[in-house]
Amino acid sequence: MVNFKTYIEATGKKSIDLAKIAEQVAREQSVNIAVAPQFSDLKPVSEAVDIPVFSQHIDPIRPGPYTGHVLAEAVRSTGAAGTLINHSERRIKVSEIEETLEIARSAELATIVCANTAGVGAAIASLHPDMIAIEPPELIGGGVSVSKAQPKLITRSVARIRGVNNTVKILCGAGVSYAEDVLSALRLGTDGVLVASSVVKNKDPKNLLQEMAGAMHDPSAVKAPDLPTA
Amino acid sequence: MVNFKTYIEATGKKSIDLAKIAEQVAREQSVNIAVAPQFSDLKPVSEAVDIPVFSQHIDPIRPGPYTGHVLAEAVRSTGAAGTLINHSERRIKVSEIEETLEIARSAELATIVCANTAGVGAAIASLHPDMIAIEPPELIGGGVSVSKAQPKLITRSVARIRGVNNTVKILCGAGVSYAEDVLSALRLGTDGVLVASSVVKNKDPKNLLQEMAGAMHDPSAVKAPDLPTA
Amino acid sequence: MVNFKTYIEATGKKSIDLAKIAEQVAREQSVNIAVAPQFSDLKPVSEAVDIPVFSQHIDPIRPGPYTGHVLAEAVRSTGAAGTLINHSERRIKVSEIEETLEIARSAELATIVCANTAGVGAAIASLHPDMIAIEPPELIGGGVSVSKAQPKLITRSVARIRGVNNTVKILCGAGVSYAEDVLSALRLGTDGVLVASSVVKNKDPKNLLQEMAGAMHDPSAVKAPDLPTA
Amino acid sequence: MVNFKTYIEATGKKSIDLAKIAEQVAREQSVNIAVAPQFSDLKPVSEAVDIPVFSQHIDPIRPGPYTGHVLAEAVRSTGAAGTLINHSERRIKVSEIEETLEIARSAELATIVCANTAGVGAAIASLHPDMIAIEPPELIGGGVSVSKAQPKLITRSVARIRGVNNTVKILCGAGVSYAEDVLSALRLGTDGVLVASSVVKNKDPKNLLQEMAGAMHDPSAVKAPDLPTA
Repeated sequence: MVNFKTYIEATGKKSIDLAKIAEQVAREQSVNIAVAPQFSDLKPVSEAVDIPVFSQHIDPIRPGPYTGHVLAEAVRSTGAAGTLINHSERRIKVSEIEETLEIARSAELATIVCANTAGVGAAIASLHPDMIAIEPPELIGGGVSVSKAQPKLITRSVARIRGVNNTVKILCGAGVSYAEDVLSALRLGTDGVLVASSVVKNKDPKNLLQEMAGAMHDPSAVKAPDLPTA
Repeated sequence: MVNFKTYIEATGKKSIDLAKIAEQVAREQSVNIAVAPQFSDLKPVSEAVDIPVFSQHIDPIRPGPYTGHVLAEAVRSTGAAGTLINHSERRIKVSEIEETLEIARSAELATIVCANTAGVGAAIASLHPDMIAIEPPELIGGGVSVSKAQPKLITRSVARIRGVNNTVKILCGAGVSYAEDVLSALRLGTDGVLVASSVVKNKDPKNLLQEMAGAMHDPSAVKAPDLPTA
Repeated sequence: MVNFKTYIEATGKKSIDLAKIAEQVAREQSVNIAVAPQFSDLKPVSEAVDIPVFSQHIDPIRPGPYTGHVLAEAVRSTGAAGTLINHSERRIKVSEIEETLEIARSAELATIVCANTAGVGAAIASLHPDMIAIEPPELIGGGVSVSKAQPKLITRSVARIRGVNNTVKILCGAGVSYAEDVLSALRLGTDGVLVASSVVKNKDPKNLLQEMAGAMHDPSAVKAPDLPTA
Repeated sequence: MVNFKTYIEATGKKSIDLAKIAEQVAREQSVNIAVAPQFSDLKPVSEAVDIPVFSQHIDPIRPGPYTGHVLAEAVRSTGAAGTLINHSERRIKVSEIEETLEIARSAELATIVCANTAGVGAAIASLHPDMIAIEPPELIGGGVSVSKAQPKLITRSVARIRGVNNTVKILCGAGVSYAEDVLSALRLGTDGVLVASSVVKNKDPKNLLQEMAGAMHDPSAVKAPDLPTA
């Protein structure tokens, strides 16, 4: 999942360019890549590419008088396939998570709920989203990457989530800047990664996506970091 | 200004239909009509019509890591001409109003800031938005219409705003359901109206818009209510 | 637990009067009763009575520059024994629940986290608060009482919480207005109740508390409602 | 005004110690000093000293079901004389400022509303609080002090506020760490200062308060900084 955030490098027409790069890499390497552009770019991006397009957020509302909010049905009508929920930059209240999941389901949107700790990950897992993106605070902000961090930051979250929910897909939602971070994330038990600035603000996003996709597809293609036992 | 809110009757393809009706009435009657669809409908609506399209909200952010927020530049890139700010259903903090106005200006978006009282209207007027929409709480929610309400609900706000700012356009932002409400709003000193459910949820929105536009264009076209002196 | 909310009947000196009534009933009937006055009444109430005093909320902050927020250490220093968290009138974000629980623990405050649905109850149970107060939306606002409602509103929440956590105390946090509601709540598997307006705004709060305490202490003292099987 | 924030050095018993120091300096030097302790310390501090005690915040609510909120009447009942509103660490929505001012007035609480820019200061001045504390963002966070900063950061705000309101007292609400900052603030047209960490976290708060009070009382007592013309 490539989160476009509100970076100018992925706004308006540039959101389509980046989505097409992601689509091309996904096709070439037979890897699942999804993109999450801004609300106003959802429709043009959905029309331009065949890979899954996600919203970055939806509000816990149903159709009605909610000026300035994001309606699940409006997102769905653009052709989007799903939505992020509770990203670290757009937290929602605990009472809203379950309601937002129900609303997303009724609008046929797949859900990725972000969780900042192992405990919160387990709490959210019990609400049965389609995917959980774990974002250890130590890995947010880019200082430390997954492949350099203590493995237990990831494995502990995976273990607590799996203690509650065996089927939810788990994404590594922070600390992924290089292909080897993707490899580390997979080896530590996650099913995929959520990336943003490392791709969006990259001078050659296609090359980085190709390397990351290579790590998803063929682990031997990248140098494996020495992973200490958790 | 027709605010589409998050009504299902103005979501997705239906937002284009309603915008086209507004465009047709605006053209036929030489009256300025703007529409405010949802974020994800901004681009298709802007491409479908030649009347001004407004966003319902923008966030006080500049390009960067703000997942799930609404960037002024993204709104502008859809072709939108402006944005509502601080609608009663999407209030922002006082420290954010001025910053949001600056951000909108730098993205070349016209601004309509909503204000719930005469005092707040005056406070906002000193920040120099392009337009202010006054929303007396007594008129919100549809129970009472402008033409039936006490005139001072509007005239007091107009007077306090004009005490600070002679050039800002003033819209009547609540209590407008019929053509005669438009007429009352204009007679009480406002420059236009902000409507929503009365048009969006109407079985024949074209007819109502035509009547309202008639009141804008030719006051004698509608029965004038008896207006007591303020 | 008697939540004083911000009712004028339990503000300032009156908060002490009501807390003393609760203390007297607790002593007479050997029942555990706690009170939750407003922040500014925590210290005088804690000094006036020997029953547990709870705060209505604490913020997820540690000592520092957080003007206008509620610090766990400040609450503890009043003599308070614990705090409510995430009450339906004061929801917090999901990422804040776990942090607030840690902060409360380090300040030696017992915790009661409110949950609006069975799913949210289970999610919160996995974060190990001391107590969970379940507040089915159908029972909030006073229209329906526990003893009149469908039992599954409570039993489903108890079951989902117990599926995750066998030791957390469960309170029935809505729909308790009469002694028989207390009895129903206990029979449906909760360990106690959270009451507010029914006691605080009562002309004779002592009498109602005595009846409710009687239901806690000796179920045969009140008329048992016919409880259908869940 | 000394804002205790949620610093541990001014929590619980220590809030009384610091308030007594402020009272002693105020008495010795015949200077007005007020203190703003945390909610739960309002009553013990109000009982311990005879100088004005302010709350750090109140919510825009009247008595009722608002668990975890701060009621003006509860603050007033502690003996507090006023309240801060809209501090940079506790912003409120623009629609809430006017309502909070009305609520404070009806509870007989004096009001200090914080404003982050000259424009917001003017906007708030039109709502007629008792005092406005101007907090130029450049001076928040302690890097730059008033006496070292560009004078226009203060004079511009004073001018815009005075353009709307001749009687409101203006406090310099950021960048005041030393006695000479107090002097600069007064010379630039403000009526007083709002201080926090420089006093609260000082090893000898009495000495600093004495120096600052000296600057209020007798400007010649401190070395005057060279003030360029605005």
